[in-house]
Amino acid sequence: MGIISYLTTTEFGPGSLAKLPESLTGLGIRRPLLVSDRGLAATPLVERVRALCPEGTPVFLDVPTNPTEEAALAALALYKAEGCDGLVALGGGSPIDLAKAVGLLATHPAPLARYAAIDGGMVHITAAVAPLVAIPTTAGTGAEVGRASLMTLADGRKVGIISQHLIPRLALCDPELTLGLPPGLTAATGLDALSHCIETFLSPRDNPPAEAIALDGAGRIWRNLERAVADGSDLAARTELMMGALEGGLTFQKGLGAVHALSHALGSLKEPSLHHGTLNAILMPPVVRFNAGHVGDKLARIKAALGLPAEVDLAAELDALNRRLNIPAGIRTLGVTEAMLPSVVEKALADHSNATNPRAATGDDYMALLRAVMV
Amino acid sequence: MGIISYLTTTEFGPGSLAKLPESLTGLGIRRPLLVSDRGLAATPLVERVRALCPEGTPVFLDVPTNPTEEAALAALALYKAEGCDGLVALGGGSPIDLAKAVGLLATHPAPLARYAAIDGGMVHITAAVAPLVAIPTTAGTGAEVGRASLMTLADGRKVGIISQHLIPRLALCDPELTLGLPPGLTAATGLDALSHCIETFLSPRDNPPAEAIALDGAGRIWRNLERAVADGSDLAARTELMMGALEGGLTFQKGLGAVHALSHALGSLKEPSLHHGTLNAILMPPVVRFNAGHVGDKLARIKAALGLPAEVDLAAELDALNRRLNIPAGIRTLGVTEAMLPSVVEKALADHSNATNPRAATGDDYMALLRAVMV
Repeated sequence: MGIISYLTTTEFGPGSLAKLPESLTGLGIRRPLLVSDRGLAATPLVERVRALCPEGTPVFLDVPTNPTEEAALAALALYKAEGCDGLVALGGGSPIDLAKAVGLLATHPAPLARYAAIDGGMVHITAAVAPLVAIPTTAGTGAEVGRASLMTLADGRKVGIISQHLIPRLALCDPELTLGLPPGLTAATGLDALSHCIETFLSPRDNPPAEAIALDGAGRIWRNLERAVADGSDLAARTELMMGALEGGLTFQKGLGAVHALSHALGSLKEPSLHHGTLNAILMPPVVRFNAGHVGDKLARIKAALGLPAEVDLAAELDALNRRLNIPAGIRTLGVTEAMLPSVVEKALADHSNATNPRAATGDDYMALLRAVMV
Repeated sequence: MGIISYLTTTEFGPGSLAKLPESLTGLGIRRPLLVSDRGLAATPLVERVRALCPEGTPVFLDVPTNPTEEAALAALALYKAEGCDGLVALGGGSPIDLAKAVGLLATHPAPLARYAAIDGGMVHITAAVAPLVAIPTTAGTGAEVGRASLMTLADGRKVGIISQHLIPRLALCDPELTLGLPPGLTAATGLDALSHCIETFLSPRDNPPAEAIALDGAGRIWRNLERAVADGSDLAARTELMMGALEGGLTFQKGLGAVHALSHALGSLKEPSLHHGTLNAILMPPVVRFNAGHVGDKLARIKAALGLPAEVDLAAELDALNRRLNIPAGIRTLGVTEAMLPSVVEKALADHSNATNPRAATGDDYMALLRAVMV
């Protein structure tokens, strides 16, 4: 167990959840709103965390898989009605991203669209954002140390709201909380984390510390994901996975790429409602293939970090891992139809992650990438 | 050129000095105190930086090699007399560490001893510390992103004053500023940076992102230090060295070890006045030998990061590098006498870095390490 201080203070290690009461006191949060979701509320975890919060802590659970402005406004109403002065987010990326939006709206004027990164909205976000403690239950999104809240606005756009002030004031990363995660979600969230490490490493921005962290994280995930999927009670593998996911989140500042431009666009569909990590897993092989030849020696360095022989094809290895982990073969089986693709391409082009893909992607390129996963 | 956001905002790359005026405006600093030293004042650099500061910016230059409380109080008097509201530190670790102490005392009650880390003084340090922009001219100390100010107190102790609030609000890392550094100082400061990467990597605290950054930094320094010493105008090598030094500074949170416990102790001698980087270079080989066998597979991982064959002896390689770079063979030639050693051992045992050496070091151990470099 240890304290790690990049981007924000992070209490890391099995048992670190016990630090929550003193952490809230240290941050001056006397009445938090606990944000989680219906899935977790069906487990003992929400009540366990609530018991570590001040007595009478209100709870908001109606968080959609892809959080919406509507849900944020509902949580905000509860936050205000209950006189809250901070937030505790428990869950995967959805409750954490929603809590970030609530902390923003609690102290900044509506509407949420005003803060969209793609429209330069970060200039409106100040240090007044309400303090947030993030407790991830997946390994995972890296949202616990990320500057972004991905929100579907009332106008249907899925946008990133991005500011250093949105970073949770404390991340409590306790791998024991992921022991109950079923194999399918362990796989999809672990591949999400792997996609963060790989996409940020490949992004053209110059940030050597981020690249070093990304390679370290990718190696940890690669060596431990199948172990954790095979035996969910393997705490050592769970701990390594959670560290890899944290490291993925620590590298977001380098920028993501086409995998995320497309998964954000697909994630903004109302129907089907698609899982972000699953989408990233499916999209990684074709995007790595698309970018090969535009990333210098970086694919070789990723293979070295994963312990793979130099001569193998990284995209094929990622595809084979998806198969071994029973990730759906493509997005058609998830309910995406041909008719949806043109608007997905439009949204991918408008996504903030599009700018940091190592190879400039046109609308035709995005359409070809989508067609490659229309299985 | 790029922005890196670990611990603090860092503008990195050739030419980034030009960002100083807008950076001061962004931080709300209208009247900075420029802190540098007499050595740099003999070059055009101090005036060049002053010209980028608001008109009439006062300058403090009387910074000793190992900064003292006395010098900090003199700078503080100027800061107050001139109505300053922030600091710009230009130089190696000495002006940056002194500026941190001035920023602390400008907003917190004296004496400096109140804030010594070894006595738990960090609890007295609040976010009120005056804002500081650090501009390193060596690659180097990592002080531009470090939480520590190493100060020799009025009572003769050399102590670390350590707090996240002492981290400069902005680091401007412009490798062009190191082009004029002579070969001897390039070598000594580069080996200082290498010692940061190696000691923090070997420290027993659990912090994988810091370890990943440390190995990346060690490799950059190892591959470029001799190039920069041979040809000071090699901007590519200078840039890699400055990145390695920045990365060393980003890893301090893991804790240092016996090299720094001893170099802090030796650096507190009034006479001879010893250079921190030179001491670290001299001390590294025997300390690496002392720790071998207590660091798992970490020496092998360092060798891999440096591109060295697995079978070589790392301590011997470090020693050979010292010889190639004309580092003094030991501390006796620098003026240290046998009579000084007992008090140096006492100070090393009391140093904050002693706690994070991978192998617990006794007074006898420290005496043996000192005797090994009494050449």
